[in-house]
Amino acid sequence: MPDFERTPLHEVTRELAATARGEIPATLVVRGGTLVSVTSGEILPNMSVAVQGSRIAYVGSDASHTVGDETRVVEAEGRYIAPGFLDGHCHIESSQITVTQFARAVLPLGTTGGFFDAHEITNVLGLRGLRLMVAEARTTPLAAYMQAASCVPSTSTALETPGAVIGPEEVAEALRWGEDVIALGEVMNFPGVVFGDEKMQGEISAALRAGKIADGHFAWPPDDWRLAAYAASGITGCHEGTTPKDTAWRLRQGMYAKLRRGSAWHDVEATIRAHTELGLDPRHIVLVTDDRSPESLVEEGHLNFVVRHAIQQGVRPVTAFQMATLNAAERFGVWRDVGSVTPARYADIILLDGNLSDVNVSLTIAAGEVVAEEGRMTADLPAFEYPDYALSTVKLRYEISEETFDVRAPSENGRVRARTIRVVENHVETKEEWAELPVENGLVRLDPGQDVAKICVIERHGKTGEHLTGFVVGLGFDGPAALATTVAHDSHNLMVMGNSEEMMARAARAVADEGGGVAVATGEGLTLLTLPVAGLMSPEPYEEVAERSKAIGEALLRAGCRLNYAFMTLSLLALVVLPELHVSDKGLVGVNERGFGFVDLIEGD
Amino acid sequence: MPDFERTPLHEVTRELAATARGEIPATLVVRGGTLVSVTSGEILPNMSVAVQGSRIAYVGSDASHTVGDETRVVEAEGRYIAPGFLDGHCHIESSQITVTQFARAVLPLGTTGGFFDAHEITNVLGLRGLRLMVAEARTTPLAAYMQAASCVPSTSTALETPGAVIGPEEVAEALRWGEDVIALGEVMNFPGVVFGDEKMQGEISAALRAGKIADGHFAWPPDDWRLAAYAASGITGCHEGTTPKDTAWRLRQGMYAKLRRGSAWHDVEATIRAHTELGLDPRHIVLVTDDRSPESLVEEGHLNFVVRHAIQQGVRPVTAFQMATLNAAERFGVWRDVGSVTPARYADIILLDGNLSDVNVSLTIAAGEVVAEEGRMTADLPAFEYPDYALSTVKLRYEISEETFDVRAPSENGRVRARTIRVVENHVETKEEWAELPVENGLVRLDPGQDVAKICVIERHGKTGEHLTGFVVGLGFDGPAALATTVAHDSHNLMVMGNSEEMMARAARAVADEGGGVAVATGEGLTLLTLPVAGLMSPEPYEEVAERSKAIGEALLRAGCRLNYAFMTLSLLALVVLPELHVSDKGLVGVNERGFGFVDLIEGD
Repeated sequence: MPDFERTPLHEVTRELAATARGEIPATLVVRGGTLVSVTSGEILPNMSVAVQGSRIAYVGSDASHTVGDETRVVEAEGRYIAPGFLDGHCHIESSQITVTQFARAVLPLGTTGGFFDAHEITNVLGLRGLRLMVAEARTTPLAAYMQAASCVPSTSTALETPGAVIGPEEVAEALRWGEDVIALGEVMNFPGVVFGDEKMQGEISAALRAGKIADGHFAWPPDDWRLAAYAASGITGCHEGTTPKDTAWRLRQGMYAKLRRGSAWHDVEATIRAHTELGLDPRHIVLVTDDRSPESLVEEGHLNFVVRHAIQQGVRPVTAFQMATLNAAERFGVWRDVGSVTPARYADIILLDGNLSDVNVSLTIAAGEVVAEEGRMTADLPAFEYPDYALSTVKLRYEISEETFDVRAPSENGRVRARTIRVVENHVETKEEWAELPVENGLVRLDPGQDVAKICVIERHGKTGEHLTGFVVGLGFDGPAALATTVAHDSHNLMVMGNSEEMMARAARAVADEGGGVAVATGEGLTLLTLPVAGLMSPEPYEEVAERSKAIGEALLRAGCRLNYAFMTLSLLALVVLPELHVSDKGLVGVNERGFGFVDLIEGD
Repeated sequence: MPDFERTPLHEVTRELAATARGEIPATLVVRGGTLVSVTSGEILPNMSVAVQGSRIAYVGSDASHTVGDETRVVEAEGRYIAPGFLDGHCHIESSQITVTQFARAVLPLGTTGGFFDAHEITNVLGLRGLRLMVAEARTTPLAAYMQAASCVPSTSTALETPGAVIGPEEVAEALRWGEDVIALGEVMNFPGVVFGDEKMQGEISAALRAGKIADGHFAWPPDDWRLAAYAASGITGCHEGTTPKDTAWRLRQGMYAKLRRGSAWHDVEATIRAHTELGLDPRHIVLVTDDRSPESLVEEGHLNFVVRHAIQQGVRPVTAFQMATLNAAERFGVWRDVGSVTPARYADIILLDGNLSDVNVSLTIAAGEVVAEEGRMTADLPAFEYPDYALSTVKLRYEISEETFDVRAPSENGRVRARTIRVVENHVETKEEWAELPVENGLVRLDPGQDVAKICVIERHGKTGEHLTGFVVGLGFDGPAALATTVAHDSHNLMVMGNSEEMMARAARAVADEGGGVAVATGEGLTLLTLPVAGLMSPEPYEEVAERSKAIGEALLRAGCRLNYAFMTLSLLALVVLPELHVSDKGLVGVNERGFGFVDLIEGD
């Protein structure tokens, strides 16, 4: 089994030069394809690439002098040769599979690396969790650059309860683990940064002092002084834009604009227009996925899908490839190692068939090894063993019952106006709406005539045991149904939503019994996806997880929930750093001009 | 006097954010100009910039909330606001003035920083010399990033005798001096790199291991395996290209292509066509000066001249500005500090009048201070004191006489064919030619009917005392004349050339008596430019040095030498790493397919 070792350049310049001279045979040669040169912005016919170990030694019109008896030769005639895709911002945990399975899923699709923010597992397990992800990533063929999570919890323990808390000292520690721990992860508490919160500013200082990048997440309008204050704090990239204006102002403030196409965050179509219509320079634009469900990896793809989508919006193919390769590498300062098919870089190379704009990846080379062909892995990856502490993370402090989801009213009977969370399909944000609901015996009841369900977040890290129940609009359930999940961004408490307390209790108990996962309970029965690693990920083959995740989606659909990739959107309803309204184990949280804060659930309460 | 301190970003993010919020008054505001946004590639009307200390806190349409009683407000209505220019490759010593005087000369022209390779003084004084340049640069308003010289001597002590020798250990030491020592300077022994010379590869390894950049100088044709071997060795930039093809292949190999317009190296006109005609992506193209004489700084300008020149070749103005700002900053990994007018960056800002394509700089802000207006410095710079060892560097081992320049022939009389160096106007390279010359009493004589002169390099560092005399074609002297100089790239020995042994001896003695400099001796008398610092630079005001340097040029012109910026070209005739033929204190050196080596002066000798 190849070890996929990536050798630092300073150790191998002599061998690379000797390979280019033809004195040492190349380990691998890609012969006679059409090169997508992202550094020159050209499409160059009849180019060959010679590889020595994990790095590229030669790129040019004739590599025959580098071919020896042992050299593996890959014929590229009639195919494109391009750099492997780099995801400029991605949470692997969102695909509900371990890093190894993620690598198996995305390598055949042409993704050979990325910039991963493991802030989901960090919210559950703290630095121990991040450390596991770093360790596992190093066993894969991916050029996996990891980030130290900045917002654990996403806001503060006053507003939500995570499994661990990260501050400037923890950030500084993680950034010392290696050059592959490359940045401070998205600083989601953007009001905190803008208004000088000491924890946020301290973490940024720690990252900058260590010579590392600070990555962003800013969700206010871009054209007043607030984005400037955010940029002035040293944050140089953001993927939360949803409009062309968002893209433009990020670029103008010296930030990289990361355009996102997750399974359910369809931002590229709008944000790319800053380039395709307004003509802005694309060099600081990066295509990212942020979060992709396992079934969307299988059904749509990964960055191959996003690059194709960008081309369909009118981006020149070579420019779209730059946005998913070189631009990301430059954004993180690793352009001398990844992001182009040029000498000295790691040999992370893909071959594509058909037209370039089809983005039809047919072979993937990572760290100098052919790892996938025709959509399937050809290389075996070692298994990674997770320790016990990562496999027993659902720690409830009481038995869940239907009464857990009671919402007390200020009066015994009558009606109340309740603040509700409106789900917005294909977007990360929500809208705040008011609903009038009946009260019986001092409890707010649901009204079958309205599409209003209960949503409850239950602390599950063995800390407070607190929970809070609020209301959500737009699930669409047309019979008794509930969804329960320990994937509940970002504190990943146990989140339960539904129109039936019975179904809610059933789904929640099923998830708790499994030690984490996702469950849909309906009159039909229970559909379950077990996620034992931190309650977030499954170590099973990604194909199987995708099937089960798809089953969850189908169960939701049969229950009446017609949202695109519904689970992805619903799993964000506890992410209190997003506009406009979200729920945590501690309360209903809104965003205003100065930051985040609790808001009343019941009018006049 | 302002101290021009540049504060690390991690120390001031809180103040910058507070300034953007309007809670701390800005120290400086530039109000209501048209912003050249190099990060978005736009020209944006009605933009303002707020500065706090040395850094930018806010960029946007209204900075009025940041203006306090003490805030200096610069009105920019009707003017362009752009980032200060960064020279992507420059030897300050070539301007024959100290760093302080260089700063005085270029700041009013809009250059606020650069990437400086002090390999001239390093050849004379070793790391002590580089250390002086770094120390002096830190006292100026410039964002001066220095490089550790790689090729001292340019080839090896077998081929030439410098004042010091630099190897991997010295490189590693210099790269530890601070973040402003940013790279390994141009690795001119490109055959050594390509063929695995251990000193060259060791220096590159030392730089890469330290996380630093390795800069290049490659002068072979670009389209075979040799440039790939050079790039595979970890070198990511080169300024020696002279054709569009050179530019294209550097970009394709993942290198930054630095397009040079020195006083006498007019490469941009050809090299830029890779962008303007072939359409290659300009993001990795950087405009550089390499070497500019003091009088050309005064007469033509610095990067302002080069940017204007690029625009005249058909580059879009905003793209040309990117090539002299952001692209250089990205090339060296300091885009978070310099290269754009965006929050968090150093406030290195220029204002321009008229059309943008005129590149008419009227005000310069560096490190947050207004330092120049209307072409003149408005800020005083501290004087830098050079130590004695830097002021006594001309150490000849014998008295120079006319006999010093004798060239022995293999026979007593008759004629010989001698290998000669043909000077090429406005280019760094030379051509090799053969001349038939008369022999009298065993000595090769000059022939008044041919434009052939003698050229002699005399070791002047107090080491061997060796010298060698050869022949040069194309000086154009029409009466007895000679040029002597201790500026003789790169070993900076005492180089003397002329058609009269008497004039040669007179000029050489004058230079030696002054402790370094340049002298032209003709029938009219002696014209002298004294360069006491390392025999390379004058600490006198740059305006006066420019006058004296111009007088040298005029004396050469009156003697018949009509080359554009003749001295610049002639000072390179001992730079043995350039094609095709050069002379050192040890012999005549040529470049062949495998590298550098001595060649015979006299045919059949």
